Amino acid sequence: MISFENDYLAGAHPQVLQALNNYNLQQEPGYGQDILTQMAIEKLQQVMNCPEANIYFLSGGTQTNQVVIDTMLTKYQGVITVQSGHINDHEAGSIEFSGHKVLPLTSTDGKISAKQLQTYMEAWHVDPNHGQMVIPKMVYLSYPTELGTIYSKAELTKIAQTCRQNDLLLYIDGARLGYGLMSPQADLTLADLAHLSDIFYIGGTKVGALYGEALVFTHNNAPAHFSLALKQHGALLAKGRGISTQFLALFTDDLYFQISQQADNFALQIKAALQAKHYQLFVDSPTNQQFFIMPKQQMTEFQDKLKFNHWSTFDSEHDVVRCVTSWATTAQQVEFLIAQL
Amino acid sequence: MISFENDYLAGAHPQVLQALNNYNLQQEPGYGQDILTQMAIEKLQQVMNCPEANIYFLSGGTQTNQVVIDTMLTKYQGVITVQSGHINDHEAGSIEFSGHKVLPLTSTDGKISAKQLQTYMEAWHVDPNHGQMVIPKMVYLSYPTELGTIYSKAELTKIAQTCRQNDLLLYIDGARLGYGLMSPQADLTLADLAHLSDIFYIGGTKVGALYGEALVFTHNNAPAHFSLALKQHGALLAKGRGISTQFLALFTDDLYFQISQQADNFALQIKAALQAKHYQLFVDSPTNQQFFIMPKQQMTEFQDKLKFNHWSTFDSEHDVVRCVTSWATTAQQVEFLIAQL
Amino acid sequence: MISFENDYLAGAHPQVLQALNNYNLQQEPGYGQDILTQMAIEKLQQVMNCPEANIYFLSGGTQTNQVVIDTMLTKYQGVITVQSGHINDHEAGSIEFSGHKVLPLTSTDGKISAKQLQTYMEAWHVDPNHGQMVIPKMVYLSYPTELGTIYSKAELTKIAQTCRQNDLLLYIDGARLGYGLMSPQADLTLADLAHLSDIFYIGGTKVGALYGEALVFTHNNAPAHFSLALKQHGALLAKGRGISTQFLALFTDDLYFQISQQADNFALQIKAALQAKHYQLFVDSPTNQQFFIMPKQQMTEFQDKLKFNHWSTFDSEHDVVRCVTSWATTAQQVEFLIAQL
Amino acid sequence: MISFENDYLAGAHPQVLQALNNYNLQQEPGYGQDILTQMAIEKLQQVMNCPEANIYFLSGGTQTNQVVIDTMLTKYQGVITVQSGHINDHEAGSIEFSGHKVLPLTSTDGKISAKQLQTYMEAWHVDPNHGQMVIPKMVYLSYPTELGTIYSKAELTKIAQTCRQNDLLLYIDGARLGYGLMSPQADLTLADLAHLSDIFYIGGTKVGALYGEALVFTHNNAPAHFSLALKQHGALLAKGRGISTQFLALFTDDLYFQISQQADNFALQIKAALQAKHYQLFVDSPTNQQFFIMPKQQMTEFQDKLKFNHWSTFDSEHDVVRCVTSWATTAQQVEFLIAQL
Repeated sequence: MISFENDYLAGAHPQVLQALNNYNLQQEPGYGQDILTQMAIEKLQQVMNCPEANIYFLSGGTQTNQVVIDTMLTKYQGVITVQSGHINDHEAGSIEFSGHKVLPLTSTDGKISAKQLQTYMEAWHVDPNHGQMVIPKMVYLSYPTELGTIYSKAELTKIAQTCRQNDLLLYIDGARLGYGLMSPQADLTLADLAHLSDIFYIGGTKVGALYGEALVFTHNNAPAHFSLALKQHGALLAKGRGISTQFLALFTDDLYFQISQQADNFALQIKAALQAKHYQLFVDSPTNQQFFIMPKQQMTEFQDKLKFNHWSTFDSEHDVVRCVTSWATTAQQVEFLIAQL
Repeated sequence: MISFENDYLAGAHPQVLQALNNYNLQQEPGYGQDILTQMAIEKLQQVMNCPEANIYFLSGGTQTNQVVIDTMLTKYQGVITVQSGHINDHEAGSIEFSGHKVLPLTSTDGKISAKQLQTYMEAWHVDPNHGQMVIPKMVYLSYPTELGTIYSKAELTKIAQTCRQNDLLLYIDGARLGYGLMSPQADLTLADLAHLSDIFYIGGTKVGALYGEALVFTHNNAPAHFSLALKQHGALLAKGRGISTQFLALFTDDLYFQISQQADNFALQIKAALQAKHYQLFVDSPTNQQFFIMPKQQMTEFQDKLKFNHWSTFDSEHDVVRCVTSWATTAQQVEFLIAQL
Repeated sequence: MISFENDYLAGAHPQVLQALNNYNLQQEPGYGQDILTQMAIEKLQQVMNCPEANIYFLSGGTQTNQVVIDTMLTKYQGVITVQSGHINDHEAGSIEFSGHKVLPLTSTDGKISAKQLQTYMEAWHVDPNHGQMVIPKMVYLSYPTELGTIYSKAELTKIAQTCRQNDLLLYIDGARLGYGLMSPQADLTLADLAHLSDIFYIGGTKVGALYGEALVFTHNNAPAHFSLALKQHGALLAKGRGISTQFLALFTDDLYFQISQQADNFALQIKAALQAKHYQLFVDSPTNQQFFIMPKQQMTEFQDKLKFNHWSTFDSEHDVVRCVTSWATTAQQVEFLIAQL
Repeated sequence: MISFENDYLAGAHPQVLQALNNYNLQQEPGYGQDILTQMAIEKLQQVMNCPEANIYFLSGGTQTNQVVIDTMLTKYQGVITVQSGHINDHEAGSIEFSGHKVLPLTSTDGKISAKQLQTYMEAWHVDPNHGQMVIPKMVYLSYPTELGTIYSKAELTKIAQTCRQNDLLLYIDGARLGYGLMSPQADLTLADLAHLSDIFYIGGTKVGALYGEALVFTHNNAPAHFSLALKQHGALLAKGRGISTQFLALFTDDLYFQISQQADNFALQIKAALQAKHYQLFVDSPTNQQFFIMPKQQMTEFQDKLKFNHWSTFDSEHDVVRCVTSWATTAQQVEFLIAQL
């Protein structure tokens, strides 16, 4: 049975495993002091055209979000996100566990707008009770969003401006960054993200790595003693080389971008097939996650040959279904899926 | 200038101060081991007809909410409340600071319904992602609510049943409990609250005390080592007698109920006067807090003789105004207010 | 039966209760915005000759220690104290509960020395593993100490210098401050403490108040948004007037100093009597706490007429006993005690 | 230059990397629900003869210690360890960061004794202030210790009994477990550890894995909803397969034990050579870490050809030096080292 449930079904891209093999027995110091980590940092600074970036390698997305928010904000400062934001709904309350309030805004397509943000901040400022309220200090958004949608350069630029005008940090969760940047609809580059945000991370776990994310403080703005803070959060690996070696491979010869583009292409082929078969899209996504409405009965019929992700209940007869491609998806798998529709 | 801004404008009811004087030089052990605390506990158990209640005296409402939620829930368990719940909006994120997620439900009158709760829990159970989500484990509501409204016995009974069916603890914030119970519309008694809820607190600060709240675990369900947990939270006073003596006075000869009733009567006189003068009510409150719409200009004109609480902005020309009475409000103050309308 | 167990056996000094009565019905805003709090702040700034002091009123000592350490330090910064420091041993782990490590130094008389501190910091700096260790950032000491001893001006000045040279904040716990300052051996004034420390608190609970401590940031160095942080910690009282009115009374006409001096005098009379009767002192304290060795059997014989505090076990036959006087101790009580020895 | 600084200098044992390769493209569900994780769990249960063990795979040792202590203890419960315990000194205060106090006992060889533990618990029980003190609830020890020493079966059995008699959980940090178990002096097996402790972990990072530790709750005693707690701590990896596959390889054909034994043998060869050359041992270690005294000048002379770990300063002329072997150490490296002495 073939699964399209998510983008972390396979291990690592073969070139990534090969890199781990290549450097395997080389003696290296621990805790991120190794030469491979230094090489990966320089490679990423170069690719994102951002020599002043501070870069750290963490083991997963929830951990990265938790550490960033906890070290960049004081406890009485909160983080604004959409209701469907990963940190709000699907990280087991890890932000609140760290002592910070998540401030959710409504959205139908997974995106936040600069105008919505501005309205929120103005209301907060004039609230007569605001002396008893958490101070909004950061905007968290995902690129692409939980619903696969992406921000245009114009949209993100406006959000960044609104953040600066309101003394808000802009943090971008890039768990699926490659799939966003390589969408045919995307007009943003890695360099743009580094320029517009204060902090972001480049997802590895969902884009070719076995584990690991690259966290970027874009303008030499990592908190003081950040490695010590990582250690205290249980987020500093003894063998930092494990993740950095993978990023070194991913950003050599544009591998990260090529495998992302391929996954997007497969997803858009599936999308086209779904539309041709008159399935209703739940949201219009240009990236590797496709959401559509499917009769519950059909979900049941498929279950022996194809696995989709049951995203939510649409109505008594239909479910919202998520179909996800990744760097590991093959043309054969896509053909098989399309043949079943 | 006379203020109706809130119900904590004055010190303590004179009989409360008198009690502090009466017992002042009596030598008593610290940390709640004194005879006055024991007497206050027994008095309250008797008044609420609940001999199995565990009772503790804490210094304020936010502290009480924080300690209750933090000691009754595991970190990955969240607390359901209305969007306008005090713990959600006006306690500076103290619940999240303690590591717990607040799960807000929408409401227009400050109340939650059993049905709303049931729907929420059913949706949570079938959410395909619920393995990554905070587990709802407690319902927090205020009696009366932030908007002065109250639950009927039938409503609260249904909520309590829904809680039990869904393995949810029911916690009632009684910061203004007296003003709720003594409303002419109220059909609940202190004994009913003790019977229906798992935990609640009897507000002192807003109802006659200089400081302090009485926290009640209704069925011998205080967490193990609760005094130690209080100490660790910075919430255990060396002189426990300070608060318990006040509660002893407040619950002698029904003082708590009488002063609450008087404040409600004054508030309802004001409400009747407002309606007679065709002010629009913002919410229909039967307790000591009245909310109405007032032209911004009139707020300005009043400001040298009368102070109301600016609750929120209604529209460009009007504000929502809160007018609050308390045990310290006098007939003369009420007459003066009414004369100005 | 008369107790000398501690200095929080009675309510409040009568002049303190009188002040609460005097201002009782005056309408005042909440959360520390009242005129009484303003008056108390100005009075204290004047008494300590420190117009740049930021002053806040909190309900108890453990809470004050917890909030100060948590708001002045980053989580990976620790606080140095003596092994017997109140925050290390007798506050139920409230500092660690807030996320900070307590770094204990050994001591026999409850005091820390500048030299000991300097040695500790030098060892920390050269520790090859210090990149994985908590960074010492604050020194916590008590004046007087847990054992009733006091620092001389010369000793405290050296400690303050050592702190500055090592980038350490100096925080003084003054739970029993009056009893320290008024000891015949003391050569420090309130103004000296304000000058030498970064933060300290003036104890009220043990020195004439019903509840409350005055927290002083000595050089306009309160953390940003400190009231909001207090609210989030559950430490902001709605009626700030309750504590500030008490401090206003305590620092009017030197009441605080006079009642402290009287208690010290009584304690030193008891000490002299103990020595005359050849009891062995456990520590040589010049303040209101006296520690001495007593046969266990005698403790038992006393228990129907006199209560001392069982501090610790000395050997199989003897206990260490603490005998404490306070503002509420009377000459008759002292005479009675001496007569029993 | 060859380094003996630590046991995490190299990547993963080749057979471990091979296993990652073998299963790489197999589609597997995330978050520990995959068949590889199930296989690794069953393999470990079998090897430790403990079918009732709950087993989880985490990314590193500090994280594992933090999560275990935080989920097994209430906040007012503390963890006893030796002063030199990893959680006390070298984890950046991560236990206190989680809200728990570490209670250190003195030791010269890195070990704690049952008698010491019993004495500590008895003193705690009779401490007159123990109502204000953290409750000791867990004993944390390392096998082998930070100083390479190991407990005998008799010693550990007594400690386990003392724990049970005092209502203490026994948690064993096995970061270097293999090197302990395979020491010629060891008389404990993996099954013994599972039998004697409540929780322990099998270190992977230092014993052949690229990253990851296997956490074992020995008698079906994992906390409820442990995966959710892991998620909330940022410790749940999307690709659980990454670690479990490595453990599957390590525990196939006794690889874990063989590579540990080889490292121990190398270490003992080095120890014998050191003693033959009259170097003074700092501690008598039978495992892969050897500690000895070396003139500072010699450390400097070595630095271009051999790297040891500077553990601490011995005196003005000498350092304490740590020399560590691992699964990746070769006979040639050992010969080279010995030739330099």
